[in-house]
Amino acid sequence: MNTNQDSFSNCNPKFFHELKPTNHFVNALLTDLYQLTMAYCYWKQGRHEDQAVFDLFFRKCPFDGEFAASLEECVRFLATFQFTESDIQFLKNVIQAEEEFFDWLRNLDVSQVVVYGVVEGSVVFPLVPLLRVEGPLAVCQLLETTLLNLINYASLVATNAARFRLAVGEKSLLEFGLRRAQGADGGMSASRYTYLGGFDATSNVLASKLFAIPCSGTHAHSFVQTFSDCSQLITTKLLDSNRNEREFVQLVLETREKLGYSTNQGELAAFISYAQCFPDKFLVLVDTYDTLGSGVPNFICVALCLLEFGYKPLGIRLDSGDLSYLSKAARKEISRISRLTGKSELNQVKIAASNDLNEATLLSLQQQGHEIDIFGIGTHLVTCQQQPALGCVYKLVEINRQPRIKVSEDISKLTIPCSKNAYRLYGKEGYPLVDLLTLETEEAPKVGDKILCRHPYVERKRCLIVPTRIEPLLKMIWNGKPVEPCLYPLSQLREFCKQEMSCLREDHRRFLNPTPYKVSVSQTLFDFIHRLWLEETPIPELI
Amino acid sequence: MNTNQDSFSNCNPKFFHELKPTNHFVNALLTDLYQLTMAYCYWKQGRHEDQAVFDLFFRKCPFDGEFAASLEECVRFLATFQFTESDIQFLKNVIQAEEEFFDWLRNLDVSQVVVYGVVEGSVVFPLVPLLRVEGPLAVCQLLETTLLNLINYASLVATNAARFRLAVGEKSLLEFGLRRAQGADGGMSASRYTYLGGFDATSNVLASKLFAIPCSGTHAHSFVQTFSDCSQLITTKLLDSNRNEREFVQLVLETREKLGYSTNQGELAAFISYAQCFPDKFLVLVDTYDTLGSGVPNFICVALCLLEFGYKPLGIRLDSGDLSYLSKAARKEISRISRLTGKSELNQVKIAASNDLNEATLLSLQQQGHEIDIFGIGTHLVTCQQQPALGCVYKLVEINRQPRIKVSEDISKLTIPCSKNAYRLYGKEGYPLVDLLTLETEEAPKVGDKILCRHPYVERKRCLIVPTRIEPLLKMIWNGKPVEPCLYPLSQLREFCKQEMSCLREDHRRFLNPTPYKVSVSQTLFDFIHRLWLEETPIPELI
Repeated sequence: MNTNQDSFSNCNPKFFHELKPTNHFVNALLTDLYQLTMAYCYWKQGRHEDQAVFDLFFRKCPFDGEFAASLEECVRFLATFQFTESDIQFLKNVIQAEEEFFDWLRNLDVSQVVVYGVVEGSVVFPLVPLLRVEGPLAVCQLLETTLLNLINYASLVATNAARFRLAVGEKSLLEFGLRRAQGADGGMSASRYTYLGGFDATSNVLASKLFAIPCSGTHAHSFVQTFSDCSQLITTKLLDSNRNEREFVQLVLETREKLGYSTNQGELAAFISYAQCFPDKFLVLVDTYDTLGSGVPNFICVALCLLEFGYKPLGIRLDSGDLSYLSKAARKEISRISRLTGKSELNQVKIAASNDLNEATLLSLQQQGHEIDIFGIGTHLVTCQQQPALGCVYKLVEINRQPRIKVSEDISKLTIPCSKNAYRLYGKEGYPLVDLLTLETEEAPKVGDKILCRHPYVERKRCLIVPTRIEPLLKMIWNGKPVEPCLYPLSQLREFCKQEMSCLREDHRRFLNPTPYKVSVSQTLFDFIHRLWLEETPIPELI
Repeated sequence: MNTNQDSFSNCNPKFFHELKPTNHFVNALLTDLYQLTMAYCYWKQGRHEDQAVFDLFFRKCPFDGEFAASLEECVRFLATFQFTESDIQFLKNVIQAEEEFFDWLRNLDVSQVVVYGVVEGSVVFPLVPLLRVEGPLAVCQLLETTLLNLINYASLVATNAARFRLAVGEKSLLEFGLRRAQGADGGMSASRYTYLGGFDATSNVLASKLFAIPCSGTHAHSFVQTFSDCSQLITTKLLDSNRNEREFVQLVLETREKLGYSTNQGELAAFISYAQCFPDKFLVLVDTYDTLGSGVPNFICVALCLLEFGYKPLGIRLDSGDLSYLSKAARKEISRISRLTGKSELNQVKIAASNDLNEATLLSLQQQGHEIDIFGIGTHLVTCQQQPALGCVYKLVEINRQPRIKVSEDISKLTIPCSKNAYRLYGKEGYPLVDLLTLETEEAPKVGDKILCRHPYVERKRCLIVPTRIEPLLKMIWNGKPVEPCLYPLSQLREFCKQEMSCLREDHRRFLNPTPYKVSVSQTLFDFIHRLWLEETPIPELI
């Protein structure tokens, strides 16, 4: 087990040498072979130390903005980047190269690399670099695949979480995805980054331990199925909240009789057993046999007796059927019994729902009306059903101070050349209006100046802005070693992400057809792009 | 780095104590909290050692059959299952329980658990258990989430790979998904299990090292972009296949002139540089600037000179644009030059294609016609875009020899009770006809007997079969310790998977609207299910 929690609280540079990636798979060899074949070519050409700049960015997203995530893991990866002797021996079977090349690989490190990144938890838009990586060409190239792997899924799932948050407003959101996640660290990353994106807790115990996320969980259907009736209970007693042992089962059975319920006996025994273990955390799954005919009545009987014993029952969970109807019917029955018995506290119990929830079912539940307080979301959250991959790319934009552009048959695959800065410009109302990319060599935009912002590709699209506030988006996070501060506790990143979300103008963050947020370039950069574009594209001769 | 490769070749029981999960996240704490709260309830009830049987199975799949995968990782997980002291200390903050409970957790192991599993690489159908787990109730319960996590994605991505294999027939398939995978082990598992499912190689170097998968990769667009012209080349020479150093660049430039090509100079320099490093593995990306106007001609110039030097150029890769049109046009130009120069070997070069390929684009390419020999598939393969999660579940089917059924509002969520055996029955033509589930206590079906196979739920659906061959599907893989043989080299599993695929009748494995394969139950099991079903469902009283 690694010691993440320690390093979270120890963001002091003297602990930097202890930084390790959270997942042991994350190391220099977790890369595509072509990075190594290219590195070999550069080395052989004597060009491996050419000064390169790469941008890591995405071109489009399902949402109007993504949330940047996994910066900390990128730093951890950089901090341990090296090829082991075992890696080198393996590579010798794959690449036929001189021993000197392998010596060079052996001694490789990232001490000459500088990385600028957008703060973890920030909202980011297409084309704006999430990372700008500068340094020796071959080394920067070797970092590509791992950085993309670390950032793509983390940012995607954080964003997906933020979308669910948007869909449910202030309701509680629990992440239940581990069993359906794409591999163990699909599950671990999902727990971590959905918490960052606004979830309240996870069912994943290891993630709770490593990342200090609240943990949540009660019982499964199988638990109910293992009971046949109350004779199986090892004791019929329960300590009340004053620590007096009193007869509990008899009281539940009498309550059930009084209320005229005819329910499944095994289920009732299971609920009693659960109450005996967790009297102050009584939340049970009510759909094993028949939600309204058995589960809810059984819950009510046990809950009333817990109240009698001085405990506050928490609620029920629905995991199948028509959640809108069942939640309303369950609430109605609970209210009826609350009135009937005069136990007003019963009305405060929560209704949780799970069962393959996705954005569409959540929005539809809202339209139909429901009585659900807590949503447990698994599969669709963690696998990001709607778009299971974020398409971040890592593109060369400058070499030896010369700009580089990738022209493509596909206009959407064009890159923006040069080492760039990125700024967020805010308007009078305090909302961000536009992100502006400038040449690194240009002067920074100033508050109060009238700034011409141009669409990077479409000539006629441009606007003038007088910003009231300007936020530089790229902060140096690595300068041969980690730059302080670069590690924050997850809870702090979560708060930051929440704040970023609330900063966005309503029409940018609405669920359907959001107004696209503008990402623009300075006039100087615009001219640069278009000149290079023409230079690099051969004029086709039609025949 | 772990020592997988060693343990792959050492399937000898004396090495079993060295078995470790490939991913360090895979341990007893990688579970849902409710498994632990339930374990506590069972322990407190004194029921933790009740004898339970759980089935791990899926209810439906997009394909007509899934491929079982990850059995080896399940065994590795079981072999190391335990809670560490650090885990216990963490759990004390989450669950308020007696110290004795934590002592019990401390000493927990899986020595009393028996697991039966379907051989890795087998084709499996809905409702048939992939695993049957027997043993002490609380321990079996604690295994649920991790086993599901291990099997769900592995089986899903192996199946997805098999679908791609089906779509392209005998063409080469390369897995390129690491950068877009859902986390590091999304990438690692994808490389491993897509190879099992029929892919030929991966770009993922770490996966190649750990799992002995062939590794593939050449160069990226950025490599081309770093070159401006041939003056950057450190040498103009190249050793020919007889190890004589000869002038190469001049020859390429003359060839280009002779053929009347006007191409991008930087790209040409990049190709020459690549040829100088990998003269016998010359495969280059031709779409950085203009596929037909620059990339293909530049490839042809260098390839012709490599032939002149005694090397066999491998081919080109297309990564954007209309792959059908571009592959045909590229092939046409290559053929034209082959004829023109009399170099027939030039015609043997391969065309590789990548760029966001999925099943639909592959099928559409087949309809349009193309000249592609090798497909590189990333995002859609590894994230399983069409259905990013396999819904395996883990259900209690028996406790203390008493059958258990889960009744649900949702008929698709019913389970099949009892500890069961599963058999594959083959017909006269040698194809499997039906899978049959029987009670474990029933006699096994016999070749030549007339066997009544019933649909588990629909009364009128039944058939008679006289099997010519019967294959028991569940083999014991764990009996308190690993049962030999349970670990096979990946290449062997891949062959097995291929064989399983070819065994299926054409109409079962066709791509669109396959004939559903029948999964049935014996008459005895059918009667059992339906009796229990009625017993456990309360009769609703309509009012």
